[in-house]
Amino acid sequence: MQNKIQSLQNNKIKLLLQLKEKSKVRKKEKCFIIEGKREISLALEGGYTITQIYYCHDICTYEQASKLTSNIHQHIDFFEVTTEIYQKLAYRSTTEGIIALAKYKSTTIENLLIPNKNPLILVAEAPEKPGNIGALLRTADAAQLDAVIIANPKTDIYNPNIIRSSVGCVFTNNVATGTMTEVIQFLKSHNINMYGAALDSSTNYTRQDYTKPSAIIVGTEATGLSDYILAHTTQNIKIPMNGVIDSMNVSVAAGILIFEAKRQRGFDD
Amino acid sequence: MQNKIQSLQNNKIKLLLQLKEKSKVRKKEKCFIIEGKREISLALEGGYTITQIYYCHDICTYEQASKLTSNIHQHIDFFEVTTEIYQKLAYRSTTEGIIALAKYKSTTIENLLIPNKNPLILVAEAPEKPGNIGALLRTADAAQLDAVIIANPKTDIYNPNIIRSSVGCVFTNNVATGTMTEVIQFLKSHNINMYGAALDSSTNYTRQDYTKPSAIIVGTEATGLSDYILAHTTQNIKIPMNGVIDSMNVSVAAGILIFEAKRQRGFDD
Repeated sequence: MQNKIQSLQNNKIKLLLQLKEKSKVRKKEKCFIIEGKREISLALEGGYTITQIYYCHDICTYEQASKLTSNIHQHIDFFEVTTEIYQKLAYRSTTEGIIALAKYKSTTIENLLIPNKNPLILVAEAPEKPGNIGALLRTADAAQLDAVIIANPKTDIYNPNIIRSSVGCVFTNNVATGTMTEVIQFLKSHNINMYGAALDSSTNYTRQDYTKPSAIIVGTEATGLSDYILAHTTQNIKIPMNGVIDSMNVSVAAGILIFEAKRQRGFDD
Repeated sequence: MQNKIQSLQNNKIKLLLQLKEKSKVRKKEKCFIIEGKREISLALEGGYTITQIYYCHDICTYEQASKLTSNIHQHIDFFEVTTEIYQKLAYRSTTEGIIALAKYKSTTIENLLIPNKNPLILVAEAPEKPGNIGALLRTADAAQLDAVIIANPKTDIYNPNIIRSSVGCVFTNNVATGTMTEVIQFLKSHNINMYGAALDSSTNYTRQDYTKPSAIIVGTEATGLSDYILAHTTQNIKIPMNGVIDSMNVSVAAGILIFEAKRQRGFDD
């Protein structure tokens, strides 16, 4: 079914605009929007349900839009929208003329499955910037981590800026969220060692062995890890910083730690 | 000398606003603006000459502003500005009420000095985003690299967004800029091995030895390194990526490569 929407006052468009801006609305409606072909493809690959697709005919034809979902046995409604509407809906400057409405997947940590018996996991405590979360998710994808856990998230992971900055990796990673208490409990009950990035009582990160089940835990750039997490870590680890300032970008630091663990575990190639 | 400026039409303010926005004006006037106490302190530490300081009395007193420069034997003119003017000048939302006018330092590669006989250097080819350049500079500071060379820069390094995202590390690193030809020539004439991050004809980055004079060279996320640089590298190196997408944030990738080199060279602690 194809429909043409020409008014910004259309109820569907009003809802999409709210889903774009408001975490509360996304949570209440249990859905979110995805912009861009690659991101939509990765969401489908990640098992997400897409219910509607909006395309701007000046940029993307119905044929191009429907091709994306041709292998998917889901019922999807297609809507053509005007350029004016599309510009309001889109959050990127260079757009591809296509936006999908997708259903939330539960990310509660109690549902998190870790099939690997010797997992390598990243935990980020209360990361603030969507751009940093996006970079963490890209690194986690490259490293094929067994899970990425966001403890005490400041926003839902379906924030458009996270989807964008992760280049869609939010859909391909095994992502979970929970309170710090839940996260610690989860790691303990799965006998996963916890290595917290911290300066106090810490060892040089290259001298720690990550070949057993390991979670690398990073805090915020401003305040680091909370005392609660630090009280539960197996060992704190630090990247020696010999410069004038004493902090590194959190996604860079996490990348260095994760790939040291990967090096110790041996790469496939 | 203290003066009070109350009009946005004041010529000094007009110039500051242009310096904030326009690379061309910065190059022509050979000066740039620095916002924030920490950034100004780091610039002074890095040997920059500051000629004027503007402070917003509602946020920062003359005493606080002048204290920053109390150890510096340079003549600095102080100007009090209104909140309205300050808000136009500032580029951060949480501001500290102080902005300095500083003189350009030459960053041409022919003036680059590498005192270390066994240097570790980062080269970034045409990095696009100021935020990525800032993160690279923070990593370079933490790793105490001997130099950071930006080949074919898209903007001058005194872009306010680079200063901000580097948290002032642009002033504490040994930074140089040049064309790709100049950069290759410099590295060759100093007998520095060139390790280019690339997927073709490359070796796993952990299997390369970086204990000799080394430059780690990274390209843009979109297109990687240019053919010109690839034709001159000693060896190409790659970070194995086993995920769904095939790229990592450039500052994360550079951090992983730099700290592998640091690990091989042995940390001090």
